[in-house]
Amino acid sequence: MLASGVFAGVFTADYAYGRTDREGKTFGAELQRIGYRGPEKAGARKFSGYFELHIEQGPILEHEGKTIGIVQGAQGVRWYDITITGQDAHAGAMPMTLRQNALVGGARVIERVDAIARDLPNAVGTVGLLENKPNSRNVIPGEVFLTVDFRHPETMGLDWMEGQLREALADILPALQLTYREERIWTSQPVHFSPDLIDCVRDAVEIGGFSYRAMISGAGHDAVYVARVAPTTMIFVPSRGGISHNEAEWTSQEQCAAGAQVLLNAVLEYDRRLG
Amino acid sequence: MLASGVFAGVFTADYAYGRTDREGKTFGAELQRIGYRGPEKAGARKFSGYFELHIEQGPILEHEGKTIGIVQGAQGVRWYDITITGQDAHAGAMPMTLRQNALVGGARVIERVDAIARDLPNAVGTVGLLENKPNSRNVIPGEVFLTVDFRHPETMGLDWMEGQLREALADILPALQLTYREERIWTSQPVHFSPDLIDCVRDAVEIGGFSYRAMISGAGHDAVYVARVAPTTMIFVPSRGGISHNEAEWTSQEQCAAGAQVLLNAVLEYDRRLG
Repeated sequence: MLASGVFAGVFTADYAYGRTDREGKTFGAELQRIGYRGPEKAGARKFSGYFELHIEQGPILEHEGKTIGIVQGAQGVRWYDITITGQDAHAGAMPMTLRQNALVGGARVIERVDAIARDLPNAVGTVGLLENKPNSRNVIPGEVFLTVDFRHPETMGLDWMEGQLREALADILPALQLTYREERIWTSQPVHFSPDLIDCVRDAVEIGGFSYRAMISGAGHDAVYVARVAPTTMIFVPSRGGISHNEAEWTSQEQCAAGAQVLLNAVLEYDRRLG
Repeated sequence: MLASGVFAGVFTADYAYGRTDREGKTFGAELQRIGYRGPEKAGARKFSGYFELHIEQGPILEHEGKTIGIVQGAQGVRWYDITITGQDAHAGAMPMTLRQNALVGGARVIERVDAIARDLPNAVGTVGLLENKPNSRNVIPGEVFLTVDFRHPETMGLDWMEGQLREALADILPALQLTYREERIWTSQPVHFSPDLIDCVRDAVEIGGFSYRAMISGAGHDAVYVARVAPTTMIFVPSRGGISHNEAEWTSQEQCAAGAQVLLNAVLEYDRRLG
């Protein structure tokens, strides 16, 4: 999403050129080397519409046996860092009633994050990263760091989950004699794709006679940035098991062809409407 | 406990001599170097009794304002390794209902281990070590490894906790579409100290007029091994906050003196009884 971010004005071109890989090579120098660093200003050529065809990267289409996802928008995302502090102590000598076990606190937060997301339709919530200290078999954990990832198609949903999270922390942790720090470290606002373009995709799906469902993108895509500067939407095809960024990623030739057919028909339909 | 293990016949002397530190130096060569590798066979000199004075390494005496712990024995310990397997997936694209989140399974196991130990008097139970994979902020965890440490003064208590743990795993994990492997990797049997020596310590405490309580050692000690080959008991003095193996370890001069007084009186009393 680096280049689409420049196109949409989220990043400057200099910021993009300065990004480095693990070997220290810069994006700008590598573009130069392969002859792709052109003189035209990114974003100068305006789009009348932007359609992006992508694998779903999730299991919903496969699970429901549908061929095409008509993407309505992209979830908003909020990321939180949480540090829970107790007191490490000997696992044999410290009685249960006097413990300040940070990992028991962490466990309850993980459970609650999962429950909050299950309580709200179209929400997801994940503790993906956890660091336990001192992380020794016979020591009661004295500190746990964990991350929370909340996503929902609407800002209101994200606000509700955030409120539930903060209530949960205040409810769970002091009762276990634990203290904590919580910080929201990153936000991506929900994106609503263009109703006109979505309508063209629906026409294209019906012309092709494909099974379909409306859906929301859970992952980030170039379309999320381009939607800031042009009418935008996306078309999803199934990805087996929802597996992505992995050699096991797989979509059948028939599914790829269906996606390409819908993309073509949608672009032709939009072009017709533009006159 | 390496040397007391050799004394009690738990380890061979060669095993002990062969242990290395992080720099590769062996215990045997270092004993030789400092002149402490003697010719006498370890354990050849029999003890008529063994009294060990130690800081509690737990908070109970301090918490109750008692000066002396009359130690009845040492907890048995059982260690378990548990690996929970789900499926890692994109935190945005995988809906809640289709997840196989190994960390949610791990959280419920942590919670249950804590609850099992709280349900049984004199028990402790701890998940001290947890490894989460792939441990990335926006990926649903696909695998969790965690350890369980259960301790109780009686084998029956350890058996009960083990049964509860296995029921919990079978109850919690398949319901979350998770599989698991559980293995008990180490056991230390409960130790009951000599009633005769305990009685001498009680006499000594009463002679000194110190406040006291009966207790069980939660940690391992030389006395645990020596108890296999000689009548054995221990005397505890308070340790502030239960902190141990740490520069903040602290016992007052008065508490140290009380412990030494009890040790002396107990040895004299036992000597008198031996005639």
